[in-house]
Amino acid sequence: MSIVVLYGGGRPNGNTEILTKKVIEGIEVEEIHLKDFLIEPIIDMRHAEEGFPEVNDEYNSIIDRILKHDVIIFSTPVYWYSMTGIMKNFVDRFSQTLRDSNYQDFKQQLASKKAYVIAVGGDNPYMKALPMIQQFQHIFNFIGLPFEGYIIGEANKPDEIFQDLKALSAAELLRKDLQ
Amino acid sequence: MSIVVLYGGGRPNGNTEILTKKVIEGIEVEEIHLKDFLIEPIIDMRHAEEGFPEVNDEYNSIIDRILKHDVIIFSTPVYWYSMTGIMKNFVDRFSQTLRDSNYQDFKQQLASKKAYVIAVGGDNPYMKALPMIQQFQHIFNFIGLPFEGYIIGEANKPDEIFQDLKALSAAELLRKDLQ
Amino acid sequence: MSIVVLYGGGRPNGNTEILTKKVIEGIEVEEIHLKDFLIEPIIDMRHAEEGFPEVNDEYNSIIDRILKHDVIIFSTPVYWYSMTGIMKNFVDRFSQTLRDSNYQDFKQQLASKKAYVIAVGGDNPYMKALPMIQQFQHIFNFIGLPFEGYIIGEANKPDEIFQDLKALSAAELLRKDLQ
Amino acid sequence: MSIVVLYGGGRPNGNTEILTKKVIEGIEVEEIHLKDFLIEPIIDMRHAEEGFPEVNDEYNSIIDRILKHDVIIFSTPVYWYSMTGIMKNFVDRFSQTLRDSNYQDFKQQLASKKAYVIAVGGDNPYMKALPMIQQFQHIFNFIGLPFEGYIIGEANKPDEIFQDLKALSAAELLRKDLQ
Repeated sequence: MSIVVLYGGGRPNGNTEILTKKVIEGIEVEEIHLKDFLIEPIIDMRHAEEGFPEVNDEYNSIIDRILKHDVIIFSTPVYWYSMTGIMKNFVDRFSQTLRDSNYQDFKQQLASKKAYVIAVGGDNPYMKALPMIQQFQHIFNFIGLPFEGYIIGEANKPDEIFQDLKALSAAELLRKDLQ
Repeated sequence: MSIVVLYGGGRPNGNTEILTKKVIEGIEVEEIHLKDFLIEPIIDMRHAEEGFPEVNDEYNSIIDRILKHDVIIFSTPVYWYSMTGIMKNFVDRFSQTLRDSNYQDFKQQLASKKAYVIAVGGDNPYMKALPMIQQFQHIFNFIGLPFEGYIIGEANKPDEIFQDLKALSAAELLRKDLQ
Repeated sequence: MSIVVLYGGGRPNGNTEILTKKVIEGIEVEEIHLKDFLIEPIIDMRHAEEGFPEVNDEYNSIIDRILKHDVIIFSTPVYWYSMTGIMKNFVDRFSQTLRDSNYQDFKQQLASKKAYVIAVGGDNPYMKALPMIQQFQHIFNFIGLPFEGYIIGEANKPDEIFQDLKALSAAELLRKDLQ
Repeated sequence: MSIVVLYGGGRPNGNTEILTKKVIEGIEVEEIHLKDFLIEPIIDMRHAEEGFPEVNDEYNSIIDRILKHDVIIFSTPVYWYSMTGIMKNFVDRFSQTLRDSNYQDFKQQLASKKAYVIAVGGDNPYMKALPMIQQFQHIFNFIGLPFEGYIIGEANKPDEIFQDLKALSAAELLRKDLQ
């Protein structure tokens, strides 16, 4: 089982990253920090005759890296009760890939993979991040990617995630599953 | 009553914009297309000693324009069951404004304003955009901005919003309220 | 198009009933007030060898009446952010019908019908009744009943629904659809 | 810390009850099986001059027992993506207690208590029971009862909950908290 982690956060070693590292401890994974790549916001050309223009950024290279793996972990701090804008701009571009002739089997490929979400927030995420989980569910349903599970963690200050025993315990269980 | 519209969409004259224009027809408003401005994703420095750095982009200028108005309309196509990444990056930066000494009364100012959301989506938004509405509710609650109402519209192809009589009727009612 | 209305409310002529009457004005419908019938809570016997016992109440007679129609309107006041307990006890019994050999084609029959929800609440239902709408969506998905739409209304005191122009306008549009 | 468990399920020794017993193992608690009591559905008389009539059932006696404790655990199987109708009828009656002169300090008393929800469902409850959690959040907010946490479990057949290691682990953590 080959695993890729997509990090949506903007802060190195943030609580979300710490919790995610617990999940992948001792497991070989590919890690992608979306903030380190140029990803343009989508220009919605679904209905233009000429279709989507080629975009000169690093989005496709990340898609290529993701598609090589069996498990995709979306690791995002909860910013304003959803994924970060950085990750959202990445997800928005899926609309383009779905119509890109170079990725004709995008959905078929995703159908055999598994997605997980790991998200840490500071303002009662066990309640207020639930709409975000529902959004991910709709996203994964649309692209045909099985949503296998999620871990919510609560933390505000640096390293505070170590006090969320429920999240740490869920991380450890997921680690065993992924091994 | 002075009104500002924040457009999150990437496509000119899209269905969301059309529905929004119905709401503001005959009313003087300030319109801001977020895609036309440089807005950097937030670098979360809430817990760094040095605090948030000054960011050399156009985010603050938009905040300044918004704060002059009594009503803020968030107008966004539903991309992947939430606001666009462009709008999300804008909202993410609120975290910075909340700690910016130049905006010490940010929350107090917002408390006297009213927010509306107008969102059009193609994949059953009357059901699948509800997590997005809940997310906006959490956002507005946090910044102390009263959430006065929302209009969801369903449309996929260009101009298809004209067939959503429920959305058009809600737009007309809101227009009368705002006059 | 033949229509049945299931009322979940406990108060005659309540705001939910008023709004529903707007929807069915001038249309012949069958109206069922669930509170007038003996409906036992389900005893979950899905996994008992003997299966569900026959229940000596009026539940099945209501199912029989519903199945004769093309459109089912679930009309419920929002009690504590969901359907009334009376209606919930009715819905809970679906589990039994799904395993009742007398209703082997229950799901097939429902698949050709359409469901609507009309719900009026007093505590910001446009936000706080959204989980209820999502719950109905899951219910209808499970039993294979297409969820065609919903109307949320806001009202607290008797007759206050007449001030919710958005709900009244949505009711009028639905009335035209159903005619 | 004195604890009361409200069971909403209709099946003895069901998966929800098993998971709840894990939480309260070795802790003295008062257990109330709502199905064993006569609880009438509410007749909404909030706006009637005469107010709510006295109801000749066992609802108040359960409220009296609950109010003696510091922690209230709502333990319900997920029936149709929410609490059981039995529990819903119980909750619906809160409207009456809130206006009952014999319980004038109902909200003040609840404010010093803590609520937990334990819910086990068979159809992907980690996703599809989230609207139910949001409903409980709204309910607890309204009555002023702090919502301290929830455990979702997945199980369908009898005893299947023993395979949901995530739920069992969360139960063990909660047990330690409650001791």
